[in-house]
Amino acid sequence: MASMYGNKLKISIFGQSHSPAIGVTIDGLPAGLPVDMDALNRFLVRRAPGQNALSTPRREADAPEFLCGLYEGVTCGAPLTAIIHNTNTRSKDYANLADCPRPGHADYPASVKWNGYQDPTGGGHFSGRLTAPLCIAGGIALQFLSQRGICVGAHVAQIEHVHDTPFDGVNINADLLQEIREKAFPVVDDGIAPSMEAAILAAKGEADSVGGIVECAVLGVPAGVGDPMFDGLESRLAAMLFAVPAVKGVEFGAGFGCATMRGSACNDPYVVQDGTIRTTSNNNGGILGGIANGMPILVRTVFKPTSSIGIEQDSVSLSRMEPQKLTVHGRHDPCIVLRAVPVVEAAVALALLDAIL
Amino acid sequence: MASMYGNKLKISIFGQSHSPAIGVTIDGLPAGLPVDMDALNRFLVRRAPGQNALSTPRREADAPEFLCGLYEGVTCGAPLTAIIHNTNTRSKDYANLADCPRPGHADYPASVKWNGYQDPTGGGHFSGRLTAPLCIAGGIALQFLSQRGICVGAHVAQIEHVHDTPFDGVNINADLLQEIREKAFPVVDDGIAPSMEAAILAAKGEADSVGGIVECAVLGVPAGVGDPMFDGLESRLAAMLFAVPAVKGVEFGAGFGCATMRGSACNDPYVVQDGTIRTTSNNNGGILGGIANGMPILVRTVFKPTSSIGIEQDSVSLSRMEPQKLTVHGRHDPCIVLRAVPVVEAAVALALLDAIL
Amino acid sequence: MASMYGNKLKISIFGQSHSPAIGVTIDGLPAGLPVDMDALNRFLVRRAPGQNALSTPRREADAPEFLCGLYEGVTCGAPLTAIIHNTNTRSKDYANLADCPRPGHADYPASVKWNGYQDPTGGGHFSGRLTAPLCIAGGIALQFLSQRGICVGAHVAQIEHVHDTPFDGVNINADLLQEIREKAFPVVDDGIAPSMEAAILAAKGEADSVGGIVECAVLGVPAGVGDPMFDGLESRLAAMLFAVPAVKGVEFGAGFGCATMRGSACNDPYVVQDGTIRTTSNNNGGILGGIANGMPILVRTVFKPTSSIGIEQDSVSLSRMEPQKLTVHGRHDPCIVLRAVPVVEAAVALALLDAIL
Amino acid sequence: MASMYGNKLKISIFGQSHSPAIGVTIDGLPAGLPVDMDALNRFLVRRAPGQNALSTPRREADAPEFLCGLYEGVTCGAPLTAIIHNTNTRSKDYANLADCPRPGHADYPASVKWNGYQDPTGGGHFSGRLTAPLCIAGGIALQFLSQRGICVGAHVAQIEHVHDTPFDGVNINADLLQEIREKAFPVVDDGIAPSMEAAILAAKGEADSVGGIVECAVLGVPAGVGDPMFDGLESRLAAMLFAVPAVKGVEFGAGFGCATMRGSACNDPYVVQDGTIRTTSNNNGGILGGIANGMPILVRTVFKPTSSIGIEQDSVSLSRMEPQKLTVHGRHDPCIVLRAVPVVEAAVALALLDAIL
Repeated sequence: MASMYGNKLKISIFGQSHSPAIGVTIDGLPAGLPVDMDALNRFLVRRAPGQNALSTPRREADAPEFLCGLYEGVTCGAPLTAIIHNTNTRSKDYANLADCPRPGHADYPASVKWNGYQDPTGGGHFSGRLTAPLCIAGGIALQFLSQRGICVGAHVAQIEHVHDTPFDGVNINADLLQEIREKAFPVVDDGIAPSMEAAILAAKGEADSVGGIVECAVLGVPAGVGDPMFDGLESRLAAMLFAVPAVKGVEFGAGFGCATMRGSACNDPYVVQDGTIRTTSNNNGGILGGIANGMPILVRTVFKPTSSIGIEQDSVSLSRMEPQKLTVHGRHDPCIVLRAVPVVEAAVALALLDAIL
Repeated sequence: MASMYGNKLKISIFGQSHSPAIGVTIDGLPAGLPVDMDALNRFLVRRAPGQNALSTPRREADAPEFLCGLYEGVTCGAPLTAIIHNTNTRSKDYANLADCPRPGHADYPASVKWNGYQDPTGGGHFSGRLTAPLCIAGGIALQFLSQRGICVGAHVAQIEHVHDTPFDGVNINADLLQEIREKAFPVVDDGIAPSMEAAILAAKGEADSVGGIVECAVLGVPAGVGDPMFDGLESRLAAMLFAVPAVKGVEFGAGFGCATMRGSACNDPYVVQDGTIRTTSNNNGGILGGIANGMPILVRTVFKPTSSIGIEQDSVSLSRMEPQKLTVHGRHDPCIVLRAVPVVEAAVALALLDAIL
Repeated sequence: MASMYGNKLKISIFGQSHSPAIGVTIDGLPAGLPVDMDALNRFLVRRAPGQNALSTPRREADAPEFLCGLYEGVTCGAPLTAIIHNTNTRSKDYANLADCPRPGHADYPASVKWNGYQDPTGGGHFSGRLTAPLCIAGGIALQFLSQRGICVGAHVAQIEHVHDTPFDGVNINADLLQEIREKAFPVVDDGIAPSMEAAILAAKGEADSVGGIVECAVLGVPAGVGDPMFDGLESRLAAMLFAVPAVKGVEFGAGFGCATMRGSACNDPYVVQDGTIRTTSNNNGGILGGIANGMPILVRTVFKPTSSIGIEQDSVSLSRMEPQKLTVHGRHDPCIVLRAVPVVEAAVALALLDAIL
Repeated sequence: MASMYGNKLKISIFGQSHSPAIGVTIDGLPAGLPVDMDALNRFLVRRAPGQNALSTPRREADAPEFLCGLYEGVTCGAPLTAIIHNTNTRSKDYANLADCPRPGHADYPASVKWNGYQDPTGGGHFSGRLTAPLCIAGGIALQFLSQRGICVGAHVAQIEHVHDTPFDGVNINADLLQEIREKAFPVVDDGIAPSMEAAILAAKGEADSVGGIVECAVLGVPAGVGDPMFDGLESRLAAMLFAVPAVKGVEFGAGFGCATMRGSACNDPYVVQDGTIRTTSNNNGGILGGIANGMPILVRTVFKPTSSIGIEQDSVSLSRMEPQKLTVHGRHDPCIVLRAVPVVEAAVALALLDAIL
């Protein structure tokens, strides 16, 4: 009970970093949507590794192979399954990790949970590579949402100490999201991109890594979408986002900033505008009581710095129960935040589509 | 599909603020646990309203009535249901809210979702009062966890601009948690309590409210508890915590602080200590890849300032679709963070017990 | 993980035969349905014990108390909970059953499952009395279905060796179902009622019991309702019906009779009639591939004879692990099939409503 | 919400008869089981088409390709996915079925449900071919159960009017099940096999088909396995079995025969035998109140005659809404009951493993 999500839209992610294939099954998609394969591939390319000096040199086409769920290119009501064959794997890079767990990785708890039977190569089922099938499913979800007038877009809000201009929670529009989507460095303010790049390359130069924050907006979600309590939009979105490797925090609207606010400042006042109800601020991030209020949904997700670093670290030998120095080889991103932008969009799209169907 | 949670432990919360009763059903509790009613009541009192000048004057005994699930005071395997009768309700206080939604409340989206048929009195199903049945279930979960050597405890980490000493993620022990549990003002550093009280009373004096942060620690969770991906501990805990009214952000370990960290600082190095594997820092908050690593679990939850304030606010008339000034009467906490401490403990206990069973 | 059902409509049944109360929570009901309490009570009376010489002399009002889910008598979107207080219980009747399990009852497996902590009085959570809350939920579901033009009705198809005229799977109409609903003895052919009564009284005279079959029809389910595979209508209906105590078999359309049919006879030919697609026979009971085809849904459910009988039976002492003779006292129906008719209707209505929402 | 099953063991079946592949994902399998591929393939061969004159001439290797979930041949805790590539498909055989639905098939309701976007070729997602991935999952479940001392075995209990000797519900043993498993014609009494074959060939000779019944026994399930109500073993097993195409009825123990029994005959008396509690009859099929009582579990499943027959049938043109004669070409079994024997074993094994984990 682990790798499946959703109430109405059931999503099952499977695979290990170095198993023959990884993939995803989506059950519950409405029939009749022509999947735009070009748009999907453009979306997947944004997450793919090996694009530039800022990410891992492991290069894979990551072209999804659709096994079922489509008939003549259109969703046919049956579960949709797509897989990506793993190639270009170098399992020997990971030979010693089964006994000497990498700090910050799932190696050790997975080993305990599964009594040493876990697949240790490339992080196994915990690999960031599993976000590729998440993006296949999410890319299709984005197309469904788009048909319903819902637009999801994210940007790199922060890398280490460099901040992008945050989204304007009241006035943000779909054009800006589209614009960012087409940028090599997805930020609002292009002027800060060089500083972010510099921060990443500085870490890389020291065989280290950096963390950051992705901010995501959703436009066009009608008021009334969502549910109270455990199926509230915040619960659903957070459960999905925390399933993404390296995520350590999720906040909506003013988020942790609410701690220092007075109610009179935090409450979003209502107004009537062009015949619809809106709010003049958006500290609640578009969600009240778990239900959309019609304003943009705003969610910020923090990614810790990549755990795999080239610097020697303190670990232990599980078999000998004694200290052991560890240097992680293999190929790793000095910063996953850029590649995480479409992953956040995919996760948000899937959680939302489940709530909307 | 809304007010039920859990895989192995199914929790169903029901009730509206002013309906005849509110309550909870827990299905999946192991048989054979004698429920300590005194301990449970002491736990519930911590959440109950009307305790002091800092919280709402609405006073209710909130004594749970057990309908089933116990046989001679011991869990018997069948679903356990407990209810609290609502008394002392003053529904007329809320007469105008069905048409004029309170900023920051679920009134408006609930009205859209349910086509105007929602129960508007006292916040209906969205009332903070629904955390009482959550605490009944959570209080019982805490007793189960305690039997298994697991201890859950929280403190007020922040009220407006006043910060308590944070938990030490590596060396925190059960004695401290027990000590805090017995304090009228649950903080680590008693010296800051007066400043926190002052901040609350200042807001109250202006008919306003303040927000804050609750930090919660869980000790004794064995490495290996949890699941990858969507059923990861962070996903489960976050889904449960975001179901609590007024929560706008959840973070684990270093949380949003990870954004500015390098991997070399954020990774928690392993050591062998007294024959067990531990880490020398706890930036991951005891969870890696969704699975416990045996270190204390650390989660921080932000509560926005109480939405119901006495200050006049801008709202709209839904029937006339025009601006309307709103002054919320009724009885409300100037700050819910203190009463939220046991609620966070309850939510965390329930999510964890579900993962452990 | 046991007493909750449903995907979109979540139903939670709780209670033990002799606990303070039994009840039901339904989550996911659309808002805006005025619950007709008179109609609901008329429905519940059909299941209630103590109506005539054919059923148990235990008399209870079984009037449901609604705790929440309604606002001014209309469903308000929040979970609906109703309970029935247990009164008139005579727990001492069951004193020896914890050690000496009744043949045909859940006493023994429940004792093993819950390590002796189960509630043994009156059958505990396994009591047929738990069908009362099922009927509260089902009675409300029937009102929702009726609003959508869907009519559910059942009759006693067989008591021991006496058979009623079966429903005509093609031409059955709502008037017949309504007519049967109002009969004291719910059969198509009133002429066979005396023989059925005689069979029941004969068994009763010998302190024994008899079994029988309930046939249920559902009219007005549109073609296309249902899902393939595990969420097929037959899977959903069967899962719900087998949750009713004493049910040992479920069949749709020609059911077990299909074994001796040729495909040419079993396939239901299509015709166009008044602009809609219909079939000229109904061996598939209105369901193909888990999905309704627009014809009446037909399901037959067999109930074993009441397990509690006055005749001395062979059992064992669990503590001494040796044979022990058992005579069950208490008050029991010689035949539950009559009272099972509304229970089947309730179960079918709930499973269908879940599939339709 | 359709093609996924299970609480602790999640099973997702995907694919269409003529899509590139069909397959299955199982999530929740314990880590550490070496999957015996030879034994699995021997199991799959029993279901495979094209074995003899009694089944469809479509021949496929149906060798599963494992994409993930294994590490060095052993389950590794991560979801296990296996697929079968579809080859040897002749889609043009099905060209006219999208407009002219086959009687007894899901063609028409699927077309309504999915607005004409369903995959009509080869029955799409409703094809009996989807039982192949069910058998991959079930074959692995059988190995897990075997490790725990649980043995599942079935036989052809009836073909048209020819009956095999039924299982002895009290004295059946694993040797008999093993013996039957190795027979080309899986019956208890080899003497009746020729009559069953004759019945099948007679139907085949007339381009018709016949139905039948599969009886399945499960030995070694400990008393206490299962849950009350909706998660009772009968509910779980029935939900799974009704997901198998062509199943129209499921009964446990004496099943529909209970209708004509007295309680004194139907109740299974307890005895102590070799230090364990057993019953001297098994009319309840090993299940009381949804929970195993330690006796063999007995379930009978009826399969309707294959819907696809060569005889001309009455259907309609959906586009023209007028009568149309239909002759189904393609390759079809005159009787699926033989091939259904391992499918029933697989379904029962999966439902049980979910209940046991």
